[in-house]
Order: sequence, then C-alpha cells, then structure tokens
Amino acid sequence: MMKRLDLTAVSRCLLAAALATALATTATPAFAATRAEQAAMVRERALATSSACALLSDLTTTVGQRLAGTEAEARGRDWAVKAMKAAGLVNIKVEPFPIPVWQRGAESAEIIGTGQKLAIAALGSSGATPAAGITAPVVYFADYAALEAAAPGSLAGRIAFIDHHMMRAQDGSSYGTNGAVRRAGPALAQAKGAVAVLIRSLGTDYHRNPHTGSTSTPAGVTPIASAALALPDAELLARRLAAGPVSVKLVSTPVFDANGQSANVSGEIPGVGAPAEVIVIGGHIDSWDIGQGVIDDGAGMAITLAAAKVIKDAGLQPRRTIRVVFFGSEEIGIYGGRAYGAAHASENIVLAAESDFGADRVYRVSSKVAETGKPLIAEINAALAPLGVAPTRDNGAGGGADVAPLGALGSGILELEQDGSRYFDLHHTPDDTLDKVDRAQLDQNVAAWATAVWLAASDDRPLRTK
Amino acid sequence: MMKRLDLTAVSRCLLAAALATALATTATPAFAATRAEQAAMVRERALATSSACALLSDLTTTVGQRLAGTEAEARGRDWAVKAMKAAGLVNIKVEPFPIPVWQRGAESAEIIGTGQKLAIAALGSSGATPAAGITAPVVYFADYAALEAAAPGSLAGRIAFIDHHMMRAQDGSSYGTNGAVRRAGPALAQAKGAVAVLIRSLGTDYHRNPHTGSTSTPAGVTPIASAALALPDAELLARRLAAGPVSVKLVSTPVFDANGQSANVSGEIPGVGAPAEVIVIGGHIDSWDIGQGVIDDGAGMAITLAAAKVIKDAGLQPRRTIRVVFFGSEEIGIYGGRAYGAAHASENIVLAAESDFGADRVYRVSSKVAETGKPLIAEINAALAPLGVAPTRDNGAGGGADVAPLGALGSGILELEQDGSRYFDLHHTPDDTLDKVDRAQLDQNVAAWATAVWLAASDDRPLRTK
Repeated sequence: MMKRLDLTAVSRCLLAAALATALATTATPAFAATRAEQAAMVRERALATSSACALLSDLTTTVGQRLAGTEAEARGRDWAVKAMKAAGLVNIKVEPFPIPVWQRGAESAEIIGTGQKLAIAALGSSGATPAAGITAPVVYFADYAALEAAAPGSLAGRIAFIDHHMMRAQDGSSYGTNGAVRRAGPALAQAKGAVAVLIRSLGTDYHRNPHTGSTSTPAGVTPIASAALALPDAELLARRLAAGPVSVKLVSTPVFDANGQSANVSGEIPGVGAPAEVIVIGGHIDSWDIGQGVIDDGAGMAITLAAAKVIKDAGLQPRRTIRVVFFGSEEIGIYGGRAYGAAHASENIVLAAESDFGADRVYRVSSKVAETGKPLIAEINAALAPLGVAPTRDNGAGGGADVAPLGALGSGILELEQDGSRYFDLHHTPDDTLDKVDRAQLDQNVAAWATAVWLAASDDRPLRTK
Repeated sequence: MMKRLDLTAVSRCLLAAALATALATTATPAFAATRAEQAAMVRERALATSSACALLSDLTTTVGQRLAGTEAEARGRDWAVKAMKAAGLVNIKVEPFPIPVWQRGAESAEIIGTGQKLAIAALGSSGATPAAGITAPVVYFADYAALEAAAPGSLAGRIAFIDHHMMRAQDGSSYGTNGAVRRAGPALAQAKGAVAVLIRSLGTDYHRNPHTGSTSTPAGVTPIASAALALPDAELLARRLAAGPVSVKLVSTPVFDANGQSANVSGEIPGVGAPAEVIVIGGHIDSWDIGQGVIDDGAGMAITLAAAKVIKDAGLQPRRTIRVVFFGSEEIGIYGGRAYGAAHASENIVLAAESDFGADRVYRVSSKVAETGKPLIAEINAALAPLGVAPTRDNGAGGGADVAPLGALGSGILELEQDGSRYFDLHHTPDDTLDKVDRAQLDQNVAAWATAVWLAASDDRPLRTK
C-alpha cells in the first residue's frame, strides 16, 4: 500500500550528469534572438544538464544536517562559497549576524506501567526537563482551541498533549491551519500550569519519525520542555488516554546559547545594463538536526544555484544583476532573512524569490509585483506552460519566509509554487534524506527557475510595489 | 509519491465492531446442511463480524511490544489467556520453556568528522561494544559473497559494512535470498577479524527505521557488536565510502541472560467425534522491541483467534479439535515452536498452520498433506475463491517457522500465503504499528482462516505425511 519512489532515478541522475552536460552543450541553439527564445533555450538546457541533483547529493552527503548556529551550518556555508565559485558566480559575500543557538540534548518518552516508548523530537527553542526527566499525568486536548478553553491553572502538574487534524494538501495550507499547535501551544499550556507539552507532529506520514520545528515563548519566560510525537505514537497515546488515565515520563535536555552566530552567503551574475537592479533568488543553508536537510532546504539551494549556472553557461548576459542568496538560520526564527532585509534595505532589489518547499514539481506561479510588472508575469506564465506549470493564481504572494522582509520593503515577489502533497511526510523529520528526491521533478524546478529568472533579469519593466 | 493507508478504515473498524457483530448474528442462516454451506457461512460471518481489528488494537495498545523473555512478553501471555477465555476456548494451557534473553542497550553510530548520525538497530543476539563505543575504519562489501571472498584476517581492526540488494516481492522471497547478510554475516566478518559489523537492513522501505532481527554466532564464540542501518543511512554510508575512507563510531551495549523463560499459550474448541485429531493454528506472542508487534505477529494472533471464535459463535461443532497456539519467543530462534514440537510429538496433530506474514490479504494457498488429504485442499481452494485467493501452488509448504517442527514430525501443513509486497517495509522496525493495518485485508484473513479451518476440522480424511 505504501509506494516508495523509484530510486533508480536518483542513482541515474548522478551517473548521467556528465553526459547530459556534454549533450546540452551541443544542443544549444547558436542564436536565440528574442527573450522568449532565450527563455526556451535556458529551460531546455536546464532539463538537459540536470545539475541540481549532483549539487544536492554533494551538499547532503559531505556536510549532512546543518543546524543553525553550529559548526555544521558553518560547513554548509563553506560548501556554499565553494559551490558558488564553481558555478561561476562573482562578488561572493559572507555576511554574519548574531543568533541564539538551540541544540537538542537527550530525549525520550515512555508510558508509565507498560514502558511503551514514544518516538519524540524536542521542539526548537523548547526548554529542558531535569536530566532524570519528569513524570506526570497527561491531559488530552483535541486541538489548539480545546487548549485555549482550558481553565487557568487547570494544567498544574500535568503534561498537556495537543492533538490536531493536519491534512495532506498540495499547497501545504493545512500546515498554516494547524501551526499554532506547535508555535504557540507549549507557551499557552505553560501559562495554564503545564509542566511539559507533547504535540502530535505537524506532519502527514505514519512513520516513527517525529516532526520537529520551532516553538515560541514570550520574552522573559523560561520555556518548559515540549516535544512532537510521531503520528503512530500520538495515536497510541490517544488510544491509551481514551481508555483511562496515563502518565508519561519525559526526558528532554536541550541546551541554549544566546550568543551564537550565523551568516548569509551570496554570489552574483552581474547585470549588464542595469547592474543596480537586483534579483534575489535562493534557499536557506540551515536545516533541522534530525534529518539531512535535503528537501528542507538543500533542494532550494541546489535548484536556485543550478538555475543561475544554466543562465551563465548559456552565455547569456542579464540586464539586471542575478544574485543567489543562501540564508542562514531560517528554521529557528528567520534570522537570516531578517538580517538580509535589514542590511540591504537601501538596495534596489526589484524582485525576490525563495525555493523552500521541497524538491517536487513547480505547479503554479504566484507573484506580487507592481502593475507595470504584470506583463512580465504573463511572459513567465507562457514560458513555464511547457513544464506543466499553471498560470499565476494571484498577485498577493509572500515568496518564502526569507524574502518576505524584502517584500515588505517593496521588492517584487515571485513564487514558483511546488507540489507539497508529500512535503509534510518528510518536513523536519529524520526522513529528510536524499533518497526522497526525484531527479525529474528536481530538474523541472531548475528549468522553471532558470526560465523565470532569465525573463525577469532581461527585462526593464518596474516590479517593485513601493 | 508515497501513499499512506487510508486510516479512517482502521478507526472505523473499532467503531463498527459492535454493530457488525449484531448484524452478523441476525444474518446467520438458520441451517447450513453441507460442509461447503457451513464453510460459506463462516466465511461470511467472519467478514461481517470484523473482530480481529479490535483484538489487535487491544493487544498492541495495552501491552505494546513483547520482546522474548521479558516482562512485556509475559504481559502478552496474560493477554492471550484472557483473550482465549473471552473467545470461549477451553483447555487453556500455558507451557513454559527456557530461553536465552537478549535485550538492547544504548545504541548509536556516527561518521567521524562530520558527525553524521546513522540510524541503527542492534541485531538480536549481537554482542556489545564498550560503553564508550568503538571507532574504526569501515570496509565495504557489496554483498555476502564479497565478504566470503575477503582474505582471512583482512578485517582486523575494521568495521565491516555489508550491503545487498533486497527487492520487493509479493511472496517475500528476497528475504530468503539476502537473509545470510544478517544471520551469518556478522559471524563471518568476525572470523576474518572485524571488530564490529553494520549491515544494510533487510527491508524495502526508505525511512530512518532500521530493521532488527536475529544473528547467529557459532557456539563458544562471544559475538562482536552488529547492527542494521536504515536504508537511507546505508546509502549515505555507501556514498561516503565511494568518495574516500570513512571511520564510524559505534555504540551498542545489549545485555544477555542465558537463563530466561518464555511460554506457549494454547486453547481449544474440542472436537466432537475425533477429539484426538488436532488442528493447530496460531501466531507468535513475542515481537521485536523497537516496534509494537502489530504485523509481526499480533496480526497472526488476532487472525487465528478471531477465526476460531467465528466457528464457535456460529454454533458449529467440529469433528476434530481446533487448537489455537500462541507461540513464545519465535523471533530469537523459534524457541516456542521447537519446544511445542518436542512436547507434543506424540499427539495426533493432523494439520498445523501459522499466520506470521503480516496483516495483508491471503492471495494463495499452499499445503503439504498426504495424498488422501488432497481432496480437502481442493475444497479449501474452492471455498476461498470468493475471497480472491488463488488455488494451491504446490504440496511442499513449510507452514510458518513455529509449525515447521510439527511438519517435520508428520503433521499436515496448510499455508494461507499473505501478500507480502509491503511486509518488509515494516518488518522488525519501529514502524510496526497499528496504523499500518487495513481492516478489510485483516478481515479477509480471518474469513480465509475460519473457512479453511472449518473444512479441515469437519473432515475425516487423513492429512499427516507420516
């Protein structure tokens, strides 16, 4: 009943990369006269060169996970600098910024009496239990609203268990609907007296892989321990609670350092004609620690860097500057994106776009651009149609967490929306590994990005919204 | 790309059980004259009562995993006695036997340098590293044959990593083909000097869930540590090794007690006419510790007990005795089956059959019976055809590990072969949890077992092969 990916496709991608590059070079048309012809050329070259898979495999095999603020994230930055150089980007910059660093400690949970072990992952920025753990009765809440309805003080001495009903959705919308369970649930339960919090993972898969992710606590409050349960474990706990009282022993001993550091890394294909008009594309370097940071967000790094390289290798010179930015420390509070927005507020960043929703196909375009930019979006729609991409849904896109601060400052926003149907099977779990990537879908992303970026970078119509 | 089960089906099964029982009672034909009509009646009652799901949920929710020789297995036995009584079985017996007990300790593995953590599970009966672990270079073997070809002493001071090519197969045949990697690989590597062994899990899923299972060491040899890698981790390690030397730090500290105890549990529907002719059906109580023992083998217990209950509740009186046997300690060396065979060698067990290949549909019948029993097998084929079951493939069946000793003593063997296409996604992993069970498929199993057992128990043709 559970179909796995055809992994021969992944293996083949690594073997086929060199050959495909040779083929693509000979397949390049000698002359592409119009911007539309150029866009078609980069689109086809992207599909033929198939270079993102090798980048993604190299990053995630040689570096692995890249938790924000750790030496692993620093190795990710080193890889990024090297990869940008190898791709022919110039003006490579590493721009540091301060962050708090949270690191997982020991973690375990078990049901008292039967000793049934529950698969958990502490939430980012959550607090710690004593090393020996805490044991307390569990109180069930069907969702965030049920927790909101609990009386003040009613959770004193209890572990709150917050359930919810996240659904599979192509656009990932159910993550937003249920996000409060993770982001705000622990602090709310703490305010009502809870000594610890367990949540059903924000995820759609039935494996013993809990989904971690950040939680928030009001300033000045020391957070209690909170952790996500894998779905089979959440359902076991719910069945046990339906039959009678249950106590759980929870151990979670993360450590926190308020004075850490991270950095953004960027590199450019300088514009010829209007170099001060900048298009920012990219993904984020950091990942959660329990997976290998492949779909979140090594894929975004590989896709956008491969797209820039396709344009460069095609010998095309953009009018506007194409800047690839790999953001640091997104997962723990969008520190990289916010630092980037603040540091580059005075630049003329005309368009910003992030790839941060996995490695599956782009299926729809969204944008947020000035009225004068709408003809460009129409051109992008037309050029992406051969890739199966549906035209722009609306002009109210956010563009990804790391570029939202740029959007707020007036940059135009482009979103190449990816099929998220299986994203939340893998998101923030140990299962975020290379074998989940489908080469053909990854290549389609690169083609979509190269095409859209070329059209925007070769254009002169204003895009900024303010 | 990864489809999960429709879990509403599982939930519905629990809610629907009571109603279905009521319906089934009223739907029972007042009189079924022939054995074929009786078989059709129990088949339809089994589908309508849908009782196995509730049994399986209760066992795995209230008891959980049931590692051989532990107090958890003892709780599983207590559950079995209670469940047999509730089903109306009589002559309930608990028959103890001695076993060695192996229990998992701390376990972890990481790649030196990058600190990439590898998801592992120590193999049953494997040895221990020091508490601080061992760190050693890893040597790659593509399969068991490659390890066999390694020179004596060539693995001194090394960790052997044995890869292989297990494939998805409906009949599970690839597990047999590759089984030596786990069962004999560690001892073979140890004989060539290895200090520890990692194997690619015998499994077909791409989750961070390693597949445990027993390994064997020659008598008198203290085993080295050995563990299975989840497939994504095995492939990461293989990619790293393809790029250059890799050292791994391995911690695995299982403990071993040579003087443990387990037991078989049995209960009967006594035969009326030929009570001394016994039909043994059942599954095994024990499970691996890292899952919840649902498809392996809570399902076999639930299916066979539910099948017996269907016959009893239909008011039918078998000519031969139907005996449900739940075997102890199968996973660690078929101790229960061997003890049962030895203790009951003098009984006239005419037919033996175990359900131990998951919870998915029966798709084919196999048998090993005397020539005089073949007409009965033909009747069973005909009665199972409405369930989509293909007729007997051959007369050379083994019948399941626990009943093989009875088969060797001359008992006829029946095998209701289950669709194992996804069995090795879950087998011996943390993912062996209730959510994986599909109610309709589980019910089809009960119907097939009740039908076949009724036909055999109401018959008088000799089945024994010696």
